[in-house]
Amino acid sequence: MKRVLIAYRLKPEGLKALEGKYEVALPVDKSYFTREEVMELIPNYEVLVPNFSFYTDKEIMDRAVKLELISNYGVGFNNIDVDYATKKGIVVTNIPNSTREPTAEFAFALLLAAGRRIGYYDRKLRTDEGVSWGIYAEGGLPVYGKTLGIIGMGRIGQSLARRAVASGMEIIYHNRTPLEEAVEHLYNARYVAFEELLKTADYISLNAPYTTQTHHLIGEEQLNRMKPTAVFINTARGSIVDEKALAKALKEKTIWAAGLDVYENEPHILPELLQLDNVVLAPHAATKTIEDRINMSVEMAQNIIGFYEGTYSVSRVN
Amino acid sequence: MKRVLIAYRLKPEGLKALEGKYEVALPVDKSYFTREEVMELIPNYEVLVPNFSFYTDKEIMDRAVKLELISNYGVGFNNIDVDYATKKGIVVTNIPNSTREPTAEFAFALLLAAGRRIGYYDRKLRTDEGVSWGIYAEGGLPVYGKTLGIIGMGRIGQSLARRAVASGMEIIYHNRTPLEEAVEHLYNARYVAFEELLKTADYISLNAPYTTQTHHLIGEEQLNRMKPTAVFINTARGSIVDEKALAKALKEKTIWAAGLDVYENEPHILPELLQLDNVVLAPHAATKTIEDRINMSVEMAQNIIGFYEGTYSVSRVN
Repeated sequence: MKRVLIAYRLKPEGLKALEGKYEVALPVDKSYFTREEVMELIPNYEVLVPNFSFYTDKEIMDRAVKLELISNYGVGFNNIDVDYATKKGIVVTNIPNSTREPTAEFAFALLLAAGRRIGYYDRKLRTDEGVSWGIYAEGGLPVYGKTLGIIGMGRIGQSLARRAVASGMEIIYHNRTPLEEAVEHLYNARYVAFEELLKTADYISLNAPYTTQTHHLIGEEQLNRMKPTAVFINTARGSIVDEKALAKALKEKTIWAAGLDVYENEPHILPELLQLDNVVLAPHAATKTIEDRINMSVEMAQNIIGFYEGTYSVSRVN
Repeated sequence: MKRVLIAYRLKPEGLKALEGKYEVALPVDKSYFTREEVMELIPNYEVLVPNFSFYTDKEIMDRAVKLELISNYGVGFNNIDVDYATKKGIVVTNIPNSTREPTAEFAFALLLAAGRRIGYYDRKLRTDEGVSWGIYAEGGLPVYGKTLGIIGMGRIGQSLARRAVASGMEIIYHNRTPLEEAVEHLYNARYVAFEELLKTADYISLNAPYTTQTHHLIGEEQLNRMKPTAVFINTARGSIVDEKALAKALKEKTIWAAGLDVYENEPHILPELLQLDNVVLAPHAATKTIEDRINMSVEMAQNIIGFYEGTYSVSRVN
C-alpha cells in the first residue's frame, strides 16, 4: 500500500477515494505539519501532498528516498522545485479544474469591488466619517463598456473572460502564445502585445503562473504605462508584482485602484497597502469556500489514484 | 421657451441637449435646492427634475400651477406621488435605460462580495485582529453552480441574470407576470412562485419597484423561509424590506449574508447593520459613477425634449 503524507489537515470528505487503498497520514491535532515534521516523516512516503504555501525544495526531496509523486494541493506550483523533482524522477501534479471557476469568480468579484468601490463603501460607512450620499461624490468607475486586459489567458483567464463579456466588457489578452481563433471567438477576445495591453486596458487582471520569467513582470515601469484610471487585479501570485511599486502607484494615483488576493510575502501584507483607500484586499481566498476546498482535495486525490491506477486523468506539470 | 427646474446641481455635460431651447435653472453655489426653495420657485416652471431622494408630493404639485412634466432623475419613482400627478394631468417620466446596466452591475458586485466575503476580508485585514490564512477558516460561499432567485425580473433583473448565467448560476425568478418564453430562454430562467423562490434560492436579489404592494415584501416571515445559507441582495428600494427584521435575521444567522445598497430611511442606516460582519453595505451607489450619472442626465433631458418635440421616445410612468 502506497503511503501518502498530507502536510495540511484536509477535511476527510475530500479524501474518501483514497480510503482502503492508500495509507494516508495527516495532522490530527493541529492544522499542518511543520517543515521539520515533514523532513522527519518524508523518508517513509511515496507521495507528498503540499499545500500552496508549503515549500517543497531540494532538501526535502533529497531526504524523500521513496518519493514518487508530489500531488500539489493548488494550481500554482511555485511552491515546488519542479526542475529538481524532474531530475530526481519525481512526478509533480496540480489541480487546475477545481480551482478554475472559484478563482475566476474571485478575480471578477475583486474587479467589480475595486471599480465600483464596494470595499471602500463598506469600510467607510462603518466609520464616524461615513460616505457622501451625494450624486457625484466618491463615485466609482463603470465596468460595463470597458476593456479588460487579461495577462495569462489560460483556463482561469478564459473563465474570467466569460464573466466579463456577459458584463459588457471587451476582452484583450496577452499570452506567451495566442489562443486558437475558435477560442478567441468564444470571448470575442483580441491578442495584443504586452505593452499595448498595459496602455489600453481599463481593467487589468493578472492570471499568469509565477516563474522566474514572470517575477516582477508588473513593476514601476509597467504601472506608469497604465491609464490613470486603470484598475489592477491580482489573483495569481504576489511575486509577479513589485508590491512596493504597486503601493506607490496606488498612493500617487498613477493608477486608480487595485484588487489583491496575493502578496509577495504571505501572510504579510505591505503596511502601506493596508493604509490605502483605493485597494481592496483579500487573504489568498480565491478558492476559499469549504465546498471548493473539498473539490480541490477530490481532484488532488484523483491525481494520486490516476498516477498509480490509471483510472483518472492526471494533471502533470513535469 | 419652456422653463426647467432641476432640484440638484447636475453636471452640465449631461444637459447640453437642453441648451438654447429650454430655460434651465439649477443650484449654482450648492448641491441642491431645499424643499422650501423648490416650493418658492416652482410656480414659474413647466418642468421639474427631482432626483430620487427629492419627494414631489401633492403640496408641491398644488403650487406648481404651470407644471406639465416631472422628468425624474432616477428609474424608481416612489419619490413622486404619481397618482396625484395623473389627476392633475402632469406627465411623469423616468430613466430606465441609463440605470439598467450600472444597477445590475452593482447588484452582481454586491452578490459576489457578500458570498465571497470581499467586504469582510478587506475590513478585517486592516484591523489588528486580521483574518486567518488557513485553508478552511473564514471561508465564503461559492457562487458558481448556485441558484439565483430574482424578485422582479424587469430590465435590471434580466441584466443581472445575464451576468449570473455566465458566472455559472441557475436562474429562477418571480414577477407579477411570467416573461415570454423566448426571454426566459435567454437566461435559462424558470418562473416560480414567491414562496418557492424564498425556499430554494441560494442567492436572492430584489429588483422590484417600491409600491404600496411591495412595502415590506421581505419581512421576518419571508426571511425565516430562506435557507440558512441564503445571501440576500437589495439594490431596489429600502422599504421593500423590513430592515429591522433583516438585521435580526443576519445577527441570528437565519440567513448567511446580505449585500445592501438601499435602506428604509436613507441616508440613515440601522445601527445594528453597521455592527454586523455578514453584511456588505453601500450608500445607494448602484449608479454612482460620474459616467453613468451623466448618462442619466442625458436620458432625463431626452425625456423632456421627447415630450415637447417628439424627437426622442419618452419613458412615461403615467
